[in-house]
Amino acid sequence: MRTPAQNAELALLLEVAGTPKPGNVDRQHDLPGLRFEHFLAGAVGAQNGLRMALDSDVGIGEAFERAIEGMADQSGGNTQFGALLVLIPLVRATVEHDLTRAGVRAVVEETTVEDATAFYRAFDHVDVRAGEPPEELDDLDVRRGSDAVPAVRERGVTLGELMEESADHDGVAREWATGFERTFEAADEIVRRKGSVPDRAAATFLYLLSREPDQHVAKKHGKGTARSVMVRAQEAREGGPELVEAFSESLLRSGINPGTTADLTAGGLYIALERDGIEL
Amino acid sequence: MRTPAQNAELALLLEVAGTPKPGNVDRQHDLPGLRFEHFLAGAVGAQNGLRMALDSDVGIGEAFERAIEGMADQSGGNTQFGALLVLIPLVRATVEHDLTRAGVRAVVEETTVEDATAFYRAFDHVDVRAGEPPEELDDLDVRRGSDAVPAVRERGVTLGELMEESADHDGVAREWATGFERTFEAADEIVRRKGSVPDRAAATFLYLLSREPDQHVAKKHGKGTARSVMVRAQEAREGGPELVEAFSESLLRSGINPGTTADLTAGGLYIALERDGIEL
Repeated sequence: MRTPAQNAELALLLEVAGTPKPGNVDRQHDLPGLRFEHFLAGAVGAQNGLRMALDSDVGIGEAFERAIEGMADQSGGNTQFGALLVLIPLVRATVEHDLTRAGVRAVVEETTVEDATAFYRAFDHVDVRAGEPPEELDDLDVRRGSDAVPAVRERGVTLGELMEESADHDGVAREWATGFERTFEAADEIVRRKGSVPDRAAATFLYLLSREPDQHVAKKHGKGTARSVMVRAQEAREGGPELVEAFSESLLRSGINPGTTADLTAGGLYIALERDGIEL
Repeated sequence: MRTPAQNAELALLLEVAGTPKPGNVDRQHDLPGLRFEHFLAGAVGAQNGLRMALDSDVGIGEAFERAIEGMADQSGGNTQFGALLVLIPLVRATVEHDLTRAGVRAVVEETTVEDATAFYRAFDHVDVRAGEPPEELDDLDVRRGSDAVPAVRERGVTLGELMEESADHDGVAREWATGFERTFEAADEIVRRKGSVPDRAAATFLYLLSREPDQHVAKKHGKGTARSVMVRAQEAREGGPELVEAFSESLLRSGINPGTTADLTAGGLYIALERDGIEL
């Protein structure tokens, strides 16, 4: 009965309800200035953009930009930027093709230069320019936001091509470039597990984190830290609930948030709801 | 930027995020078979009905029925029936008149017999017929669900009049009959407090519970229990956080859920978001 857009919104809510998700805000953990309720407001705010993704006449770049604009209408800042970048093409695949890796690959291939310009405009709504930007900012650096639009047009690069170029250092871009390999893997993990859906989401998050370094952590804290977090996630999984909770507290205290892993978990939840009809 | 329908949905989410709300499911407390995620799904599911309430051409009974149908699409059962019965006329008042007691009084006065029939049909979507119904069920007993529709038509009773008749034993009906007196009081309490919005909601819930017996508790456990819960809420408020948590655990163990007080809190959150623009 829920539309794909509504399942996507619910996926955002279930993702943040799953606990513990080491290093990230969840039902039991807040960060200073970024709290659980910011994610609730972000999910509701993303609604109009998610609904636009149902309409094949609307570019998915435009739908994404609208989702980010709505998401950002709370003081916590960038709550679900990456998750929405995963969800929007999945929603479009659901209505335009089918919710398979081939379906979402087709969506990526169909993206246009206009989608790419809208993607850059989306950055205007969130503060990703924290810290001093380097003096020589690449023409297509996302920190330029909409200022990069003329360069995007000149180069004639589509959103799918842009993602391809970033695939080696951005975990969400890699999903776009690989037919959402890990997102579909996350869905399968969620479906095969037992227990409540938020519990399955939290377990899947930890599974993903233990398998590959989180790219958001790598960007912010370096590859060494990302790799160390991965190894500690493996140890925590083997050690049981108390170790997982201790690991979580440690990451939160250090300000290490495996955000990309949370984005993939949200995407996996959407697929599990929409494709597999997992029940709540 | 959020529509009134989106603020209403966010109010449902913030209500269940506030903790502790003694006796009720919240961010930190589940009940067997009724968990936090059922409320998340209930809020998203109510979306279409809440959006219908924005459209003056749609009766609020019909909007309510649609909201309940969507809300019920999860296995936890009746999560937000009462809260939606508070929210739908408030949303309509926002778009049709203004979000004041006079505005929502006007909405109640404008209700029709068709609204009343839709209200009865809404009961078909939730299990309110738990236990053995008495052999002689009154013609307009809500446990009849849509079977009561012919009797409603024959009596020519509007939804507003129906609520008036139930005002002495149903806390939400009393809101309808009194221009949402306690709901607006809840909003003022939320607005005047400090701290995060879920914390303010939880404090307001406890304040309301300490002032009047919860009618949902009275219906299920008798007036004496409802009065005792009210007195214990007063003591818990005076005793501080630990006593509030102990009180909460005690109610949860006894299966005593002050549901009406939660419904009014959700309504108060909506008003605080929509009228006062409280920031998240």
